Amino acid sequence: MPRLKLTLEYDGTHFHGWQLQAKTGERTVQGVLQEAFTKLPGEHSSIKAAGRTDAGVHALAMVAHIDTTTTIPNKKLTMALNAHLPEDVRVYDIQNVSDDFDAQFDCLYRRYIYKMKLARDNFQSTALERYGVVFLYQDLDITAMQQAAKNFEGTHDFASLATQETRETTRTVYLCELEHNGRELNLHIVADGFLRNMVRAVVGTLLEVGKGKRNSNDIKRVLESKNRSQAGKNAPAHGLYFVEAGYKSWEVKSKD
Amino acid sequence: MPRLKLTLEYDGTHFHGWQLQAKTGERTVQGVLQEAFTKLPGEHSSIKAAGRTDAGVHALAMVAHIDTTTTIPNKKLTMALNAHLPEDVRVYDIQNVSDDFDAQFDCLYRRYIYKMKLARDNFQSTALERYGVVFLYQDLDITAMQQAAKNFEGTHDFASLATQETRETTRTVYLCELEHNGRELNLHIVADGFLRNMVRAVVGTLLEVGKGKRNSNDIKRVLESKNRSQAGKNAPAHGLYFVEAGYKSWEVKSKD
Repeated sequence: MPRLKLTLEYDGTHFHGWQLQAKTGERTVQGVLQEAFTKLPGEHSSIKAAGRTDAGVHALAMVAHIDTTTTIPNKKLTMALNAHLPEDVRVYDIQNVSDDFDAQFDCLYRRYIYKMKLARDNFQSTALERYGVVFLYQDLDITAMQQAAKNFEGTHDFASLATQETRETTRTVYLCELEHNGRELNLHIVADGFLRNMVRAVVGTLLEVGKGKRNSNDIKRVLESKNRSQAGKNAPAHGLYFVEAGYKSWEVKSKD
Repeated sequence: MPRLKLTLEYDGTHFHGWQLQAKTGERTVQGVLQEAFTKLPGEHSSIKAAGRTDAGVHALAMVAHIDTTTTIPNKKLTMALNAHLPEDVRVYDIQNVSDDFDAQFDCLYRRYIYKMKLARDNFQSTALERYGVVFLYQDLDITAMQQAAKNFEGTHDFASLATQETRETTRTVYLCELEHNGRELNLHIVADGFLRNMVRAVVGTLLEVGKGKRNSNDIKRVLESKNRSQAGKNAPAHGLYFVEAGYKSWEVKSKD
């Protein structure tokens, strides 16, 4: 069957993460996407994504692939899928790709943003952003957090920052930068791949640096320990956004 | 009892509007605010706001007043209220005011913004903004809409733009401006007061101008008709934000 590359956005608030939960029947992004495909003529494979986000995590541009016999042109297919999808998932773009394109294994890098806001002094939490930003009520040493963030860059064994991870735990972090702009505090992190809950553990560890509970040079020791108990707690899911999956240029077959 | 001026933000998505619905028990902003006060020591009056927003309408800075015997200093009172309030309402600021301050009757002007985004060509609706922005899928003559908007400015009888309104229907619109910035289309409207559903009817009428169903000069005829059927349909509630209530400077009594 021909293969399609899908780019999609979702609000993770009401999803139990990306991955289909056939046993429990919990609402997942993969689940509602595959169900939307069943409303269209043709046969369709299951869908595979660049990253399997957890419950509450959002995506601005998740990439996934599916094999389908549908002959609907891509632009019309986008509209047809969105008509069948719930409003908290939107398909942005559909491209034809070669049969060996794999959204997960061919992904060269993933980029996440973790969004926080300083809620202290005259700043406060806001009702309208409560599902998309994590509010920080403490006094934080942001410079120390920024220095500590850079220590995650490079190729390391990230076992101490992963939850229930069965895969090999070495990853290369290309960028780990804490952007501070007025009230906003955003962690930008790019890696060849991420372990389960890794970004949330990185943020949790940086927050402990910010609170003075650990030193910015402590990151090296945390990594070397390969022990989850040595890093900070996982920061909440709702500040996390999957924002980019990078691939080599793939031969796009014209169907439209 | 001493009088307090409250400034608050809310996400209208899950509220049946501002006003207490004692009979039906529907969830309203006034209702949850008054309930939060009952958790605090002292006696408290009911709460009155500058504007009674409808179901689904948001507020970035609604102003309200309450009489209360509480002796908690204002900054601590803000925190105590927010601790008892659901996350979709946040109290921002509390000031002591003179006993004759009235959030509704002393309000000199109200400002609303109606947020829209053009969702056509390569632009699309987004999952994460679905409760806060109205997406427009049609081709629109935005210049004609901008010209038409200005025709609402001035003192007019707005009967043709009000739903179930029992009050006198003459209002003065100080500003009615459609801001167009790339994909964003925001109506800024300021008036001494607004009739029920008036902003939504103004937006609905402007959208008909944008679609070419009526001329930008048609606004004058609509106003003169004083007939609701002559204006456009009410645009959806979720694009509407109450953003400012303007008062003369009030003598603020120091309690903190």
